[in-house]
Order: sequence, then C-alpha cells, then structure tokens
Amino acid sequence: MATVVLFSVNRAARTAARRCLTPRLTGPVRGGEPHLPLSSTHSPSLTLLPGSGRFSRGSGVRFISHGPAGRPAAGRTRSGALLLAGAATAAVAGLLANADHFQRAEMATKVPRPVQETGDEEGDILERCRGFMSLPVTDVSVLQGRKEEMRTRMEMLIMETQADFCKALQEVDGGKFKVDRWERKEGGGGISCVMQDGKVFEKAGVNVSVVFGNLTEEAAKQMRSRGKVLKGKDGKLPFCAMGVSSVIHPKNPHIPTVHFNYRYFEVEEEDGSKQWWFGGGTDLTPVYINKEDAFHFHNTLKEACDKHHPKYYPDFKKWCDRYFYIRHRGETRGIGGIFFDDVDSPSQEEAFSFVKSCARTVVPCYLPIVYKHLNDSFTEEEKDWQQVRRGRYVEFNLVYDRGVKFGLATPGSRIESILMSLPLTARWEYMHEPAKGTPEAKMLEVLQNPKEWV
Amino acid sequence: MATVVLFSVNRAARTAARRCLTPRLTGPVRGGEPHLPLSSTHSPSLTLLPGSGRFSRGSGVRFISHGPAGRPAAGRTRSGALLLAGAATAAVAGLLANADHFQRAEMATKVPRPVQETGDEEGDILERCRGFMSLPVTDVSVLQGRKEEMRTRMEMLIMETQADFCKALQEVDGGKFKVDRWERKEGGGGISCVMQDGKVFEKAGVNVSVVFGNLTEEAAKQMRSRGKVLKGKDGKLPFCAMGVSSVIHPKNPHIPTVHFNYRYFEVEEEDGSKQWWFGGGTDLTPVYINKEDAFHFHNTLKEACDKHHPKYYPDFKKWCDRYFYIRHRGETRGIGGIFFDDVDSPSQEEAFSFVKSCARTVVPCYLPIVYKHLNDSFTEEEKDWQQVRRGRYVEFNLVYDRGVKFGLATPGSRIESILMSLPLTARWEYMHEPAKGTPEAKMLEVLQNPKEWV
Repeated sequence: MATVVLFSVNRAARTAARRCLTPRLTGPVRGGEPHLPLSSTHSPSLTLLPGSGRFSRGSGVRFISHGPAGRPAAGRTRSGALLLAGAATAAVAGLLANADHFQRAEMATKVPRPVQETGDEEGDILERCRGFMSLPVTDVSVLQGRKEEMRTRMEMLIMETQADFCKALQEVDGGKFKVDRWERKEGGGGISCVMQDGKVFEKAGVNVSVVFGNLTEEAAKQMRSRGKVLKGKDGKLPFCAMGVSSVIHPKNPHIPTVHFNYRYFEVEEEDGSKQWWFGGGTDLTPVYINKEDAFHFHNTLKEACDKHHPKYYPDFKKWCDRYFYIRHRGETRGIGGIFFDDVDSPSQEEAFSFVKSCARTVVPCYLPIVYKHLNDSFTEEEKDWQQVRRGRYVEFNLVYDRGVKFGLATPGSRIESILMSLPLTARWEYMHEPAKGTPEAKMLEVLQNPKEWV
Repeated sequence: MATVVLFSVNRAARTAARRCLTPRLTGPVRGGEPHLPLSSTHSPSLTLLPGSGRFSRGSGVRFISHGPAGRPAAGRTRSGALLLAGAATAAVAGLLANADHFQRAEMATKVPRPVQETGDEEGDILERCRGFMSLPVTDVSVLQGRKEEMRTRMEMLIMETQADFCKALQEVDGGKFKVDRWERKEGGGGISCVMQDGKVFEKAGVNVSVVFGNLTEEAAKQMRSRGKVLKGKDGKLPFCAMGVSSVIHPKNPHIPTVHFNYRYFEVEEEDGSKQWWFGGGTDLTPVYINKEDAFHFHNTLKEACDKHHPKYYPDFKKWCDRYFYIRHRGETRGIGGIFFDDVDSPSQEEAFSFVKSCARTVVPCYLPIVYKHLNDSFTEEEKDWQQVRRGRYVEFNLVYDRGVKFGLATPGSRIESILMSLPLTARWEYMHEPAKGTPEAKMLEVLQNPKEWV
C-alpha cells in the first residue's frame, strides 16, 4: 500500500540548517508573522542551544542557487537514496545534492549577526525545498503552479517544520532520522522521519502527510469538532488534509516527551465553495515535574499566541487539558500546552499566520529543555516510573486520541506512521501507586489537577 | 471507589488444592458434566503436570469440616489480612483459617487413587468456599439462601475456576498471587488475583467480578452481541453480571500467553421475566508457532465442546478468529481457541453445563504447554520479538476488546482489574518486519492466515 524510499539529507545540508538556529537580534516582521519570543529572556535559568542566545527561523538565511534549476544532477547525492518521481523532482534532487551551495551558505553565516527577517514565503519553491528532509509530498511543479494557494503554503510550512525540528533533534542526539516516503493509494502520501534508540531519544517521530480524495458527508462531519454539516455532490466531498505531527520520547526520564501537530483541511461543497480550517497544538509530558521547564514551555507558547489574540493562550490551554485527559485514570496525559481545532477566523491569512507562529515555536519550546537535562543522572526507579508513564501515554493514544482513532479506522492509512507516536518501551504495573510525598506522587497530583504555569 | 483488602490463602490450603490435580482414572458424570479429555492421549509429546497422567477436577476430593460452620475464628488466619463483611463471611474466614482441616484433607489424598466423581455442586456452599482465593463476592449466607439459582451456581463456578487456575500457576511458578477484594459502589465487587514478575510469569492476572444494579436499555442492548431490545421499567433494567477472566503473560518467549473469560448475565424485564445468557472463550497467543502446542490447545477445547454440540467447536473457533482480529494490522492477536457470546439455549441447565466444561478445561489446555517449555532457552532476539508481540496485544486490548472498552466507559469500574490484562512490558519498533523465512515471519504468516489446528 505504501511505497517506502529512503532519503538522506547530506551532511552539508544538515550543517547549513543548523545555522538557521544561530542568533538574530531583531528583525522586521512581514505579513503579521510575529517575532518569535525567546526562551532566554523568560526563563533565564534554562540552558539554551549551544552558541545561541536567541532562536531564529531559517528564513533569515537563504541559499542561492547558482545552477539551472532543472539540471539532472540526481546522481550526485553524497549519501542516501532518492526517489525521483518526475522532472521537477529530479531538479530538486539535483539541488539537494549540490552540497557546494550549502557550503557557501554555511560560510556566509559563520559569524552570528543580526539577520533581516525576509518573510517566510519568499524565494523559489525549489530553493526552499533544499532544507527539507525529503521532497514535498506534492510534485514540486504542481506546487510551483499554485504558489499562492493555501494548500501550497501550508505544505511548505509543514515540510519546513519537519525539517527544522528533525535537524535540531539530530544535532542534540548525534543520530540520524530514517526518512520514509510513502504513497496513499487513494491519493496523496507522506514523509515519516523516525529516529529509534538514539543516544538521547528512545524514539523520535516527525511525520508529514498530505492526503486528498473524497469524503462522505458523515466522515467530513466527524473531522470537525463542531460537526458542521457539509453538502456534497451525491453525498461526496472532495477534500484535502495535511499536517505535521511529532512525538519525541527521550531516554532520560528527566527530559520530557513532547508532542505537536499542525494541520489544515479543505473540503469542497456541492456549489464549489471551499470550507477550510486549521487545527493543532503542542504539549509536554514530563515524567517528573520541573516548574522552570513548565514555565518556559507554556510561556513560549503563550507569547506565540498573544501576538495573534489575547484569548488564544488561555482558551487553547484549557482545551489542551480537556483533550489530553485519560478519563479512566482521572488524570491528564501530561502538563498540557495548547490545543485547538476548527480555526477558520478571522481570515485565512490570519489563521495561517497564527498556525505558522505555533509551528515555529516548537523548537524554542522544547530544545532548551532537552539541553538542560541532557546530562542529568537518573536511578533505576526513575526509569521505571518513566516506563509506567509511557504506559499511560499508550493508553491515551490508543483509547482516546481522535487522530489515532480516525487513522486506524481509515482504509489506506499508513499504520506505522500513525503508531510511531507509541514509545519504544512501556510498562504496566498492577496497582502502581507512588508513596506519598515522593516526586512521583507530586507528578500524579499535577496530572490530577491541571495547573496554570504562566 | 474500590475497597482493597489483601487476602492470603495459607500454605496448607494451597497444598490441598494442588492435590485436586492428582490423577483420576475414571468416574461417573453427573448432570451432563463431561469427563474432561486428557492431553496425554492426544499430544503424547506434551509434558504433563508433574506426577499426573490425567487431569481431574477438584470436586473429586472434598474437605470435610469438623467444626461448627459459624464459629468466629477470623483472628486465626496464619497469613494475610481478611475482609470480614458479615457473619457468614466470618464463618468462612474461620474455616479458611483452620489449617488442621486442610492438613487432614491433604493426608487423606496423599496416595493418588481413582476418586469418585461426586458431581460439581454437592456439599455445603461453605465447604466449597474453602478452596477459593478469597470469600465469594456475594455474602455466603445470601448464596446459601438461594443455592439453586443460576447466579449462585455461576458465582461458585467462577470462584472455583479462579482458585484452580491460580493454584496451578502458583505451583509451577513458586510465587504467590496477590489477592485484592474490591467493592463497587453501584453494587457488587470482585476479587483480583495478580502475580507480577514471578519466576515463570511476567504478569498473571485472574479476576472474578460479580456486579449488579440498573442498566439503561441502550447499555443492555450493547451488552448482547445480537443487540436484542429489552424493555425496562421506566427504561431501567435490573441486571446482574458475573465472570472470571484471566490473562497470563509468561517470561519465556516459548511459553505462550493465554486468555480466558467465562461470564453470565441476567436482566429483568418490565414484566418481571428474566433474560439470561452466557459468554466466554479461551485463546492462546504464542510468540512462536509450535504445532504440537496448537494441536493440544485446540483439541482439548474441541473435546470439551464436542460433548455438548458438534457445531460448538467449529463455530466458536471461527468466532474466536474473527473476534481477536487486529484490523489495522491485518492479523489476529494469537492462534485463537474458542469464543462465544449470547448462549441461551438449548436450556439454562445445558448452557451452564457447557460453560462449566469450558471453564474446567482451562488448566488442562494451558498448563501442559507451560511445563513443556519451562526450561527452553531463548535469545535476546527472541525476547525482543516477544516484546513486539506484546505491543500488538496491547493494541488489540485497548483498541478493539469489547470488554475493555465497556469497562473503561463504565463509571465505577475497577480500572486496575480491567487493565491487568496488559503485559508488564511491551515494545513498539517502527517498521518492524521479520526477515523472510525466519520463525518470526512464520508466526506472522499464521496470524495473517488463521489455520485449522485439529
């Protein structure tokens, strides 16, 4: 059902991407895209990424192509295999393979300096694809042909989010993501990046999918939280759904698990009008409570939200606590973050801008926490408690998670990508009850009574 | 929500119970209860329980009480705490505590000899309770007052099944079950026996529950496979549900996991008439295929079924393969066994007799397989494969199992008892695919294409 192809980003590309995380001091903002808040100013005790006082987005550093975009250079990849599915694909492969360009870009950014915020969607689609973990799901020539459409802009955003996050994780782990491209018989496909049994991460999965086809009215209704009724032609609705989702389970019990997901839907009604909406969220699942981490995580999200609407953070924080609730245990999965669905206002441009801010907050939300606890020592008991919490994670994902349930029930779904959110190992101890006053009991207490962290 | 009390069966009681498994050559059968088939004649290569050529049921060996049934001897337990909920309870506690009686019983059965099949429901309720892991859920005086009713006979059967199986497992493991009594606020309660991290068993759970109260018409409908509509008074239906269920996860990957469940429902309709039905099944989940084991397991079940109806085994074997199907993986959970629901014919007596045969086949189905592989050596890779299969077990139980779903959605359920079916440890490897021709691939092949074993 799924065609799987290995795809490796060469070393120079990774190095160049890493540079995207180097400091930037200020920069103008285009099209409502906020200047992303910095962890350091809000949680001074947090260790930042090495050599970086502030986070920046890749858009400030651009790689310029010197060669013709279409030249057939697929044979020049330095490592890994590449799927060549068409002319445009081959062109991208050629660019990706051309390490010299990346080397030049790397040189140009060697000295950290304030860089211009040049906006997020400038430059040729082909150029932007260079930093991705794989070619986009949609043919590059198709994307180029409908550059201004939201589904193109969103596909580029989710590809970029996947790449930025994967590279930041590779940087800290030293390992490499396995990149699988897969196709969906019914339309579309995806790119799954998984790193398993790394030095820092037990299991890290970052998945992009872009699928399309026809939905039944009932299925379309189920896809929306508010269950809006959509009228299709003969009951069928052409749809397009895309998103990036990720779950990272570290080995060290003092480094929390993180999850995020940003998605976009389009459904075409009988009269040809398009319904669209965004959904998403980022949430943290620590094994032990660390108030500084919790503050940093929530505050970074709050600042991203506040640029768009003062009610976004408080509303979506509550929604998150409600959504990630393991009812049969009477506890939340973790300490939350934000969660939203069905966002279709005030305008498509503004909704996208908000989602973009959230997606770009993933690295600054999480990576400083990883670095901070990288060398924390831990006991066997702490590892056991982590395994018990992993069991609860599995319970939530298999019993309640709407995405997983929808995926498992949808014919043609790629099960391995849906279930990559499950930890490598988990444990179910009968009647496990932490003794009063222990750090484990304190963690449970927080999960049973969600807190305000900011 | 649940009151938990530890309850330990003393050593003498365990020893006496073990004697119940000693040989019997022949014996008359009462009330349609079949002479249980023997593993040895059908799978000569299987190692039997030590010293036993044939399996026998406990009913052939009876302990005679010499003291007054009601004497208050609760203080005399040799080990463990006891919940004393009423006068009859105290009386049973006294009997259970009186080890001398068990010693005498033990003496009397020291020399294995052909014993008379004296039927399964003879003797005082109080006497029969002696061999149980705990007092029954229902007050003994209540049971005595309605000795002939099906709910009493079934509660005695499930208590007995729990005790026989737990004792057989303790015998092979050397460890002891932790016995928890719990109460359900809404009516009824249960007895959970769990052995964790034993010598042979990673996690072994044997649970009895007896619950009652009022069901909504909708809930009652959901409880029946055939979804029969039942009319209640003001939409409410007084009900009583009871069952014994068990999942055993051994450490050695060459010893399969076993699961069984036997249950009985009663619902009272508006006009006072009672609807009742039985359900149940026993199924095996090996990590590696062993044809002899599979034959022994299925054949033992088939012989138990055949005594009652020639279509039971073939029909319930198919139902089992259908039920334990992990749809999103395209594979069954294990190699099946039997599964049935909604059995309410040809008569209550005959349906009960069938369920009794099945319940009493649990030990002879499984224990010979455990003994046979007790000392099998295994590699790290084999252990890993077991952990991956455990992950699939978790997937089935949390995503599809009706009992688990019903339990998790029912207020007042005892979550720890419902989820004791989950293994102590499990593993999810991304894109795990056994190489062609390996024993792991052969196992998968069988799970993807259920076989006839008999």
